[in-house]
Formats: sequence, structure tokens, C-alpha cells
Amino acid sequence: MAGNNSQPGRTVASRMLAILDAFDFEHPRLTLTDLAHRADLSLPTAHRLVGELTRWRGLEREDDGTYRVGLRLLELGLLSGLHTQLRDVAMPFMQELYEATRENVHLAVRDGDNALYVEKLTGHRSVPIISRTGGRLPLHTTGVGKALLAWASPADIDDHLSQPLSHPTRYSIREPGRLRRDLQRTRRRGFSTTREEMTLGSCSVASPVLVDDEPVAAVGVVVRSSHLDLDRLAPPVIAAAHGIGTRLAEAGDDPYPGYVHDVTLRSVR
Amino acid sequence: MAGNNSQPGRTVASRMLAILDAFDFEHPRLTLTDLAHRADLSLPTAHRLVGELTRWRGLEREDDGTYRVGLRLLELGLLSGLHTQLRDVAMPFMQELYEATRENVHLAVRDGDNALYVEKLTGHRSVPIISRTGGRLPLHTTGVGKALLAWASPADIDDHLSQPLSHPTRYSIREPGRLRRDLQRTRRRGFSTTREEMTLGSCSVASPVLVDDEPVAAVGVVVRSSHLDLDRLAPPVIAAAHGIGTRLAEAGDDPYPGYVHDVTLRSVR
Repeated sequence: MAGNNSQPGRTVASRMLAILDAFDFEHPRLTLTDLAHRADLSLPTAHRLVGELTRWRGLEREDDGTYRVGLRLLELGLLSGLHTQLRDVAMPFMQELYEATRENVHLAVRDGDNALYVEKLTGHRSVPIISRTGGRLPLHTTGVGKALLAWASPADIDDHLSQPLSHPTRYSIREPGRLRRDLQRTRRRGFSTTREEMTLGSCSVASPVLVDDEPVAAVGVVVRSSHLDLDRLAPPVIAAAHGIGTRLAEAGDDPYPGYVHDVTLRSVR
Repeated sequence: MAGNNSQPGRTVASRMLAILDAFDFEHPRLTLTDLAHRADLSLPTAHRLVGELTRWRGLEREDDGTYRVGLRLLELGLLSGLHTQLRDVAMPFMQELYEATRENVHLAVRDGDNALYVEKLTGHRSVPIISRTGGRLPLHTTGVGKALLAWASPADIDDHLSQPLSHPTRYSIREPGRLRRDLQRTRRRGFSTTREEMTLGSCSVASPVLVDDEPVAAVGVVVRSSHLDLDRLAPPVIAAAHGIGTRLAEAGDDPYPGYVHDVTLRSVR
């Protein structure tokens, strides 16, 4: 990819976005040379754009000379509706679910074929798992993902089942027919389960957050495989998902429904 | 501001950042006209840049035609060190503190004269307050802010005390001498308190997260003013701050110290 640095069709704006896109889970810190390479830019162009982004505090330069995503981008991201409308409303319900289970509690939305994890609550006693806030995992191997997929349109489900299905563990469901039956069962029961389909040693239970029958998010818990009765986790998970959905529907288009409006805002900024 | 749209010194990159800067707590949703005005850009320039940002999914267009911060910026922000190194490490300790108090638990860092709230845990029973994740509040009127300020260098404290001190409530401390004594007491005791200094009806207790004696963050709880004995909240707050600091020091420069490394990462993305 590198080397072809003078594409006339590339706008300055797209070059700047390419720099931001160079960062991902595997590459949270990058040198200027890495950045130029991954963004397919000449070193001087990368240097200039990284400089602007750093002065703006969207990037931060570490002591070792590498760059990483900075405060300003976190601050901006936290203004998104996923955070202020969904996560802030969901938090107290997730907290209740955490208290009932003491396990990892997840809130995820669908983004294409992935579940994007918007929030995760973890205690010291929760089972170690690979999900992280801001991370993505496949829809069909995770509890939250299956809950999102089970309430998708039939055409959307058909489309998903027609693709090659990844299999992070030997228990991941790779057969379209079996997955379809699993999704039907999920929908019938109101909650999904996974048994070591994403990570050996972990199981999950999740339920969709429905607003006007649309699955806008899913909430779930991940527990050790030694957990004796997964179905017993379903009621608190369903209750949390239902509580969040109801509160979101009431909130309508309030940009900050999780926020207390009767307290003065004058000094917030 | 608007009208002067052809400043020759303004780079395309800075125009794009100006569009992002147009969004803030009071303006989470903006029309294209608002965006052009707030970023001081012509409508065609704003239209083009907003188009690029929307295709990139850094902005999202709502049904009513307004724009807001989108999924891609949230996802990027969550790669920042403030999130992956600080917040992820702090979460289980914050969770314990929440369980001990059932009140709002905050994690904040210092950004200039503000405390920037990196994480907030809230339950249904927590007192309604104005802090929000991603929001900012003054250092000298908040528990987390005083904890950060009390461990700052003497020159830094002098500098802060020489500025006009804002007073969100009639109980906010506006006198430099009184604030200095409060900070000295905070440092001596290992925790800060506020009594209705930010919001009438709310009090707080906070403690700094120290790494190599530097206050890298602060953790605190906010409770109703009717709470009988604020000092009794200090031990669990101090324990949480100490736990986070110890874990951060151990983690060194691991970009994901809150993350379980012994689980396969192969299928994370």
C-alpha cells in the first residue's frame, strides 16, 4: 500500500481520516513512520497532519515518541448518541444486573456483522473474557450478537446465514441450519445463550433492547462455563433489557435521557 | 464569527477539526447551517467536509436532518489511554466502591482547570447529579477536582489560586486562603470533601490515584447532603484510589492492562 503517496483523488480530509483509521485494537500506539505507512501517506504529509491532530489533542505523543488517541477524541466520542442516549440510560439497569450476578455485564449494538461493545461492567470476581468496551466480536458467536441477530428481519438473517461463519472455538456454530434454529429458539424464549462459542470456559445469556420492536441494542452477562443453570440468568437479563427499552422509548429524542435535567447546567462547562 | 470564510491561513485539516469542535455538551446535534456557522465555514465547505465525516461514520445524520457524533468517533475515543489504560484498570475498583456505597462513583483526570470525567457508575438509587462521563467540572468545586489539585505542585496550586474562582453555589469556596487550607487538609488526610460546593443537595468524597507520587486521576463518590457522616466514606474511597494506583504502576506501559492477555485475541476483530 505504501509508496503511492500522491493519489490526486485523495482529499486532505480523507488523508486525515486515514491517519485516524491507522489506530485500532492491535495498533493503539504508532510511530510517525508506522502512521505514514498505514495511512499510505508520505512522511512529510503524515508529519504535518499528525502535528495538527496532536495540537488539537486528538492524538497524544508519548514519551517514547509513539502516538496514540488523545483526550479530545475520547471527549468527542462520549457526545455520541450511543453513549449519551443508550449507555447513560442503560447504566443503572446494567448496574442492577451486575449486582444480581457479579459477572461481566455487556451492552452492545449491531454494526454490520459485528456486535460493537458500548459498555462493559466488570468486577474482580467476574470471569476473564476478551470483550472490551469499543471492541467488536462476531454476531453469531456472542450472546449479545445472537440477541441482535435473532430480532433482525428474515432477509437480514438469510443474508447473514449465507456468509461463511467464523468459528473462534470448536463449539462455535458454523452450520447455517443449526444457527437458524438457535436464532428461532432465541426469539421464542426472549433470550440467547452461548456455550463456549466465543471463548472456551465462558458462556453467556443476552436479550435484545427493543424500541418499537426494533433491536436497538442487546444486554447480556458472561459467566464461567461451570455455571450450573444458564437459564436461571435469563430473568434478570430480560428485565434489564426490557427496562432499558422502556426508558429509551419514553426518552424519545432527548439527547441526554440518562441525565438529570432539573439540576442546573449553568456550570457544566 | 461567521462571514469570514476565506481565511487563507486555515488548512483543510483545521477546518475539519473546527467542524468536530462545533459539537459540545450544549450542542450535541447540529444542522448543516449551525455547523457552518459554529465552525466559521462557508456552507459549501461545511457540506463537503460534513459529507466526508458522515461517510466515514464519524458523524451521523439523524432523521430530522441534524448531525451528531457517530459510532466511529466513539470507537476511536475508546482506544485512548484514558480509556484502555486508566478506565479499564479502574473499573473493578469502582465497581467495588459502588457496591459499598450504592452512590455515584466517579473517575476523573485533570485537564487544565477542569476535572474531566472519564467514567461514572450510577445506580437507580444514586443521588441525581450533574456530572457526566466526558463532561468537565471545575477543579476547586468538586471532590475529584480538589483531590487532583491538592497533589499538584506548589507552583501549580499558587497559579490556580491566583485566578478568579468560579462559584456554582453559595457554598463554593471563592477565597484563595480558605481553598489553600482546604487543599492542605485534603493532602494531610488523604481525601477531599465537598459540601454542596458544586450542587446544592450533594456532597462528595474523593482521593487521588497516585503513580510515582503523581496524581494521574482521582476517584470519588457523590452522596446526598443528608448523608450523616461524610468521613466514613473515606476508607473505601481511599482503598479504591490506592488499588487503581498500584495496579497502574504494575501495568507499566501495557496498552491494555485491564484486559485479560491469556485469552486468545485471534478473533477479537
